[in-house]
Amino acid sequence: MTAAPQHEDRRLEDVSTAYGRTDRTTPSRDRERVSYDRESVHAMLDEGYVCHLGFLRDGAPVVLPTLYGRIGERLYVHGSTGSRPLRTAQRADDGMPVSLTVTHVDGLVLARSGFHHSINYRSVVVHGTARPVADETERRTALDAIIDQAVPGRAADCRPADAKELAATAVLSLDLAEVSAKCRTGGPNDEPEDLDLPYWSGVVPVAPVYGALQPADDLRPGIPVPGYLADFRRA
Amino acid sequence: MTAAPQHEDRRLEDVSTAYGRTDRTTPSRDRERVSYDRESVHAMLDEGYVCHLGFLRDGAPVVLPTLYGRIGERLYVHGSTGSRPLRTAQRADDGMPVSLTVTHVDGLVLARSGFHHSINYRSVVVHGTARPVADETERRTALDAIIDQAVPGRAADCRPADAKELAATAVLSLDLAEVSAKCRTGGPNDEPEDLDLPYWSGVVPVAPVYGALQPADDLRPGIPVPGYLADFRRA
Repeated sequence: MTAAPQHEDRRLEDVSTAYGRTDRTTPSRDRERVSYDRESVHAMLDEGYVCHLGFLRDGAPVVLPTLYGRIGERLYVHGSTGSRPLRTAQRADDGMPVSLTVTHVDGLVLARSGFHHSINYRSVVVHGTARPVADETERRTALDAIIDQAVPGRAADCRPADAKELAATAVLSLDLAEVSAKCRTGGPNDEPEDLDLPYWSGVVPVAPVYGALQPADDLRPGIPVPGYLADFRRA
Repeated sequence: MTAAPQHEDRRLEDVSTAYGRTDRTTPSRDRERVSYDRESVHAMLDEGYVCHLGFLRDGAPVVLPTLYGRIGERLYVHGSTGSRPLRTAQRADDGMPVSLTVTHVDGLVLARSGFHHSINYRSVVVHGTARPVADETERRTALDAIIDQAVPGRAADCRPADAKELAATAVLSLDLAEVSAKCRTGGPNDEPEDLDLPYWSGVVPVAPVYGALQPADDLRPGIPVPGYLADFRRA
């Protein structure tokens, strides 16, 4: 077998398992922390449901927290048709340039030196163009995905949007094309000459913990806790 | 006493206890969730240590997670002098327009209708201009503030930056001037006609929980856990 076909095979595999690297997804430092692996990106996205969406307003950046949902290689965010980002996107013919970031904080890293203090984290940054979703079927699917992103199984267990609610809700889509993930794990990276300093050093782990369910004040008696909420996000 | 002085007194108090409202800190909807109260903003900022910083790169928005520190009415972020946002800010004569957002997620709100699903959260959005901090004393104070923001008391219990480390670290300041906070609390707001639907409804509370300390592999024996890490963020 010659070298060429092997090389081609590997390239094909690269295309399917990783996002292409672009200038703005190539960091200027800490390159060892960056990944373009599709599965890792999907896993980080699927663990979350709140993103920080950056867009321009009058030429200045605005960053707002918002819910999101993922279906395959597409993310969705939603909002009132009257809200700023949604109105901005509706007005723009070519869609709205955005940066969408999802971050998980895993620990505080305490080094002997102030300089090497850090956090353990995993984050995904998506660059691209957010476009209003006009198709009603895709909008319904997107709204379900946003609910299921936070509570898998919930979308099928609530009243779907009626015509009026659907008309009041705008949905934006953002394709996963220009994407990078960053991850820091492990303990502090102290300088060798600092190791004998008398400072405690290590990691304080942190994770979101979900507490006991708080039923609505007006919850009708006899409605059981659904299966998808039993041991919710305890894995 | 006449009405006028009373009115003036109240206005003076407003100035000191609340941030001034501007067009971009006035939301187009959910206005009842917005606050400009200085104390509330400080409390929300002080509970966190990771923000999402939005800035422009080649005219497009970029949102990155980063650590921050607060001293009075000023926030600080830091990074390698080689990193993108820091280089961008250094180049800009008038500073760099940014949006800095801090978000706490407090619960998932499950309503009978998909439309009324929401999250309980508290967030602060700061608009303004980030400027490089040239003064060495202010830079050292800022770096300490960033460490103490995550672990109060830690900055005094580690080796301070040496000249080389200080030269490699850029610090940006952002004044708290154009600021708003948003907050959602409580249970689902269902439509009256949905209350008898057979769906469980309520809130799943969520909060970050800090786990058992993980000492560094190379921690020297005999170094006790410092007081500021005992029951860390358990309150």
